[in-house]
Amino acid sequence: MSLSSTGTIAAIATPTGDGGVGIIRISGDEALTIAEGIFKPAKQSFSGFKPYTMHYGYILDDSSVEIDDVLAVFMPGPNSYTGEDTVEINCHGGRAILGAVLGEILSRGARLANAGEFTLRAFLNGKMDLTQAEAVAEMIHAPSKGAAQLARVKLSGVLGDRIEQLRGRLEELRAQLCVAVDFPEDELECLPLKTMKSEVGDAVTNISEILAGVERTKAWREGGLAVLSGKVNAGKSSLLNALLGRNRAIVTDIPGTTRDFIEETLNLDGLQVRVVDTAGLRETNDKVEQAGLDMGRDLAAQADLVLLIIDGSQPFSLSEIDPEFSASSGKCVAVINKSDLAQAEPVPADIMRNAGYEVVEISAKKGQGVDLLSAIIREHILQGAGEPDPDELVPNSRQATTLKKACSELEGLMLDIDMAIPYDLLGVRLETACSALSEITGEITPQEVLNSIFNNFCVGK
Amino acid sequence: MSLSSTGTIAAIATPTGDGGVGIIRISGDEALTIAEGIFKPAKQSFSGFKPYTMHYGYILDDSSVEIDDVLAVFMPGPNSYTGEDTVEINCHGGRAILGAVLGEILSRGARLANAGEFTLRAFLNGKMDLTQAEAVAEMIHAPSKGAAQLARVKLSGVLGDRIEQLRGRLEELRAQLCVAVDFPEDELECLPLKTMKSEVGDAVTNISEILAGVERTKAWREGGLAVLSGKVNAGKSSLLNALLGRNRAIVTDIPGTTRDFIEETLNLDGLQVRVVDTAGLRETNDKVEQAGLDMGRDLAAQADLVLLIIDGSQPFSLSEIDPEFSASSGKCVAVINKSDLAQAEPVPADIMRNAGYEVVEISAKKGQGVDLLSAIIREHILQGAGEPDPDELVPNSRQATTLKKACSELEGLMLDIDMAIPYDLLGVRLETACSALSEITGEITPQEVLNSIFNNFCVGK
Repeated sequence: MSLSSTGTIAAIATPTGDGGVGIIRISGDEALTIAEGIFKPAKQSFSGFKPYTMHYGYILDDSSVEIDDVLAVFMPGPNSYTGEDTVEINCHGGRAILGAVLGEILSRGARLANAGEFTLRAFLNGKMDLTQAEAVAEMIHAPSKGAAQLARVKLSGVLGDRIEQLRGRLEELRAQLCVAVDFPEDELECLPLKTMKSEVGDAVTNISEILAGVERTKAWREGGLAVLSGKVNAGKSSLLNALLGRNRAIVTDIPGTTRDFIEETLNLDGLQVRVVDTAGLRETNDKVEQAGLDMGRDLAAQADLVLLIIDGSQPFSLSEIDPEFSASSGKCVAVINKSDLAQAEPVPADIMRNAGYEVVEISAKKGQGVDLLSAIIREHILQGAGEPDPDELVPNSRQATTLKKACSELEGLMLDIDMAIPYDLLGVRLETACSALSEITGEITPQEVLNSIFNNFCVGK
Repeated sequence: MSLSSTGTIAAIATPTGDGGVGIIRISGDEALTIAEGIFKPAKQSFSGFKPYTMHYGYILDDSSVEIDDVLAVFMPGPNSYTGEDTVEINCHGGRAILGAVLGEILSRGARLANAGEFTLRAFLNGKMDLTQAEAVAEMIHAPSKGAAQLARVKLSGVLGDRIEQLRGRLEELRAQLCVAVDFPEDELECLPLKTMKSEVGDAVTNISEILAGVERTKAWREGGLAVLSGKVNAGKSSLLNALLGRNRAIVTDIPGTTRDFIEETLNLDGLQVRVVDTAGLRETNDKVEQAGLDMGRDLAAQADLVLLIIDGSQPFSLSEIDPEFSASSGKCVAVINKSDLAQAEPVPADIMRNAGYEVVEISAKKGQGVDLLSAIIREHILQGAGEPDPDELVPNSRQATTLKKACSELEGLMLDIDMAIPYDLLGVRLETACSALSEITGEITPQEVLNSIFNNFCVGK
């Protein structure tokens, strides 16, 4: 572990934007001194920062001009988030104000914190292991209450503890293996192969249990992706609006890698679903359109669900459907729009039903069938997985990948034991598994892994 | 004043988005009870919320599942922002978490606060007058440190105090006038006309002093508007990027009423300038283009500065410049781009100079001259006005409009005195002036004015 973090750091800890309140956080040896230098108490009776107490007062700039009216609180280390002396200043929540107050703090010797640096310090100071640090970021970015809950379970350190316990037992096995290698005559006595295999088998079971929830909770943790496909006049935009109108809880316009797609986020009863409108891309065949079509296909390949929007009032033939979006793909639903108008002959809904598609008939304009469609989208993306259990322990994707690596080493080890592979080679397998596990908790974690974890944070956490 | 606000209210007080910390604020009689119902202290020694003390603990949902780890603080009324019992909960700053915690609070009887409702309560509870309430919103939305400073001066109530003092003196005059009307025989004794005129004259001077800074500080308080005009290939986009590259402090992509314009916000050494790219709208003459051209003209009319971007390497004639953007308009600067290339003959920069324009030669691509251009933009928008004085008292536009109304009544009154208009009619003038002044502090303010003021706030303040 060679990441380090020194000096006194400061940053705006609340999201960017205009709001009622904004918090500036300072952490490090100089936090209190810096705060004392810029804070003028409102009360005459103020006799220094009392720990964990809100003090009302003013922030002064270097010409003693009052910049803002604030509430400031001092949290002495080690009983603070970072484990160091920390001061938090609740300012008025505007960008200019927060910028000005932060500017004063930086001019007095603090430096601007990097993304995730407060949490990095908590980690470096032993306030939390890596699984807890990751849980903080997971909570903040959680797309649903369920996802936040899954992250919070890990915030308590229970995943880290369980992994450490597992690793402890495997390290013991490894120690016994080393003895057996050094004293080959006592080999079988030190560590009977049968015992070792059963111990390793227990570890595999243990890891599999931890991994069990990963796939099932994926939609809750990461949200789902639904792609709208269909001709320009099929009413995709009206549908998107109708879906949004019904599900206003989270509506954001996320800038994508390309502006060719319109992307919105629905909150379907707590489940977050990105809906991407791939627009009527099949009309012409020029190069740009072809590129768009390819991107639409890529998106559809990643999607949990493809909604084929068809104007039911217009003549329709099955040949209009991209062969990629076959009924047998299992992830397409036909949405027959304009059900309020006279339907074309042959009836498009019948054509799609006969071709094996699940069919929903709606009128985006009149809002008919849109609730049902919302329910179908949610169901498809959840694939039968209910709300996550509030106590469920589910690793994130980094942790799951590393756990799978450890697991496959251990499974390999069990085969090796059966094949009577020499003890020293068995030891290598065990070592690989143990070091994978230690990467999860941060005991021994490559710098690039740490970097990528903490870079995922926002500045101010 | 008939706006009212009852019940216990709650809202997320920090900006929307993912951040390290998010604050939920609860205010009203039930604030403490609700907080006690959902808060589980981390420390065994917790014996209830100590005022102004940060307590570490957990928020529980109705099934006693821990939703988040938080810091909670109780601020009993009247010593709180709203003047009522207030609890603030510092949560992890994600949308889902904050939504879940807020949901628990609302399910226990609080209702979601309206925009500005916390500040409205502070106003209704006599914690601040209307000028102070407005100062809160002005601070939050301040586009520059200077603007935030100008707002903060008013947060202390100094504008309200000054207006109230002024109104008090005018009300006294009015009382004397009433006596004079009731006892006409003592008219001149009660209130000599000369005294009255001089008193009214003092009030006019006083108001004029308050209004003095309004125009001068406008650019700081509201930011400036610069419009880019020029042909498609003149390099406007590169210029916009070059300007942004140099001034990264605030860069936002503000969605306008129309997507035909690209708008970015520069921070030029603390001064906020919206830059709108009106794109090469003069090429064709169809209806849509004409509409775009009209909108460009409207924007240019509002603009503090129009930058005429010209490709110096291409043949250029003065006839390409819209007559609206003449040198004599005083708000146009010619920006000759591509100064790194061989210049056309006759030299476009010379043509523009000879036509009386200020000329800046740049290469947006190579970054040459861009710093100078930034300085020129800033200078044009400030028009010689320096940074605002940190103690300067400057009314906002509502206050200024109302002050001007009061002032013109008083000036009318002085003329009326000269013309020996009867005392009862003078009294009407005085009453109008006084009631205008009372609208400023909120003593007597029409409901629609109050509504528009508090609707300007974000929810949570």
